[in-house]
Amino acid sequence: MNNERHISSAFDRDLETVQALVVKMGGMVESAIHDAAIALDTRDEELAEEVRRRDKAIDALEAQVNEEAARLIALRAPTATDLRTALTVIKVSAILERVGDYAKNIAKRSHVLVHMPAIDGAGIALRRMSATVETMMKDALDSYIQRDAALAADVRQRDLEVDQMYNALFREFLTHMMEDPRNITACMHLHFIAKNIERMGDHATGIAEQVIYLATGEMPDDARPKSDSVTRAGLNEGED
Amino acid sequence: MNNERHISSAFDRDLETVQALVVKMGGMVESAIHDAAIALDTRDEELAEEVRRRDKAIDALEAQVNEEAARLIALRAPTATDLRTALTVIKVSAILERVGDYAKNIAKRSHVLVHMPAIDGAGIALRRMSATVETMMKDALDSYIQRDAALAADVRQRDLEVDQMYNALFREFLTHMMEDPRNITACMHLHFIAKNIERMGDHATGIAEQVIYLATGEMPDDARPKSDSVTRAGLNEGED
Repeated sequence: MNNERHISSAFDRDLETVQALVVKMGGMVESAIHDAAIALDTRDEELAEEVRRRDKAIDALEAQVNEEAARLIALRAPTATDLRTALTVIKVSAILERVGDYAKNIAKRSHVLVHMPAIDGAGIALRRMSATVETMMKDALDSYIQRDAALAADVRQRDLEVDQMYNALFREFLTHMMEDPRNITACMHLHFIAKNIERMGDHATGIAEQVIYLATGEMPDDARPKSDSVTRAGLNEGED
Repeated sequence: MNNERHISSAFDRDLETVQALVVKMGGMVESAIHDAAIALDTRDEELAEEVRRRDKAIDALEAQVNEEAARLIALRAPTATDLRTALTVIKVSAILERVGDYAKNIAKRSHVLVHMPAIDGAGIALRRMSATVETMMKDALDSYIQRDAALAADVRQRDLEVDQMYNALFREFLTHMMEDPRNITACMHLHFIAKNIERMGDHATGIAEQVIYLATGEMPDDARPKSDSVTRAGLNEGED
């Protein structure tokens, strides 16, 4: 929270302009997460194609954020906290760009999956997981814009839930594969999709950690609880 | 190539100090890639544990690069090319940190795989793929330090080879899984390892693209050839 800075400086105004781009990018990434999951579940190839197409606009926005942030730094020569804040804009937009890539990849795979046997319950389970991650991403961005470290800490905690959903799906896909070899190829793709969604959760956490860094000057340590109950079963999948 | 700048400025000297940290980080990441593959192939649990342990030092170096680069920007207030160069240091070290995480993840999975049936030829194939990526990473970093755009372009091209190796392995694992369901769990893990190595190749390419950006002021476009021959077979795996 920037309560100690009551006077809006030229730096602050410029920063707000760049952050507005990040907010726009965030909205597009949330839509991509959402639509990729729907396209997959409803086998909507047109929507999947749209998700792929829209990723170019997300990439273009990241390039623009990089340029504007560099211009801001060059023009205002910020130091200390302001510089850290400006550099964080670049980090957050890089994370969003990567999440957009994951959504695009899910959309690509849904094209492939259309021609394969459906796996019972997978579409719904992946949509639920994806909705959880979408909310995490929204809250992570809100926490970033509001500089709300408490909300950021909450996002970080929720990643545990996503890891658990992923681990459950991993076991489910294994069962389907063992039951019928004709499910193997589809399950391999679905498994990758689940992994991509799980990674999106990690990236939402990454944004939350940047917020905590801005608030405290330190990155949170590794103490984030990890779902490792399955480690002992040799299926520890939530730790990538 | 910075041929037009013959006089070493204070900025240049500071930059060299930060880049020395990136070089150190690069060396550690190359070792991590190398050792993770050996630990997997030889089922050397001690070496795998060492790879996991050493990742903390890589993470610490990234934090140091971030701080030193921020200090450099605050102190020298670089503009234009110098600022772009300073920001690239942060991007490159972030990429190296992520590659370190992939190596750590491979080491984690090799612990799990020790207790599963061996899959014929997988260890050797993964080591070969990993060696290719290790060289790409080395050359990407060399191209970065030397500002050698031609070498960077070459690294970018080589990613195609890694994608092809990955696609071949994907098909091989599918075959093993279909032949014997007892191979399924091991193959799922090996498949993830292959995917992680393939992603490392993408990240080496990411560093190469930063070098091209520094040399030309523009990110290379999407024209990088992608191995999409398997797209038609519904197994397009090299595109994440």
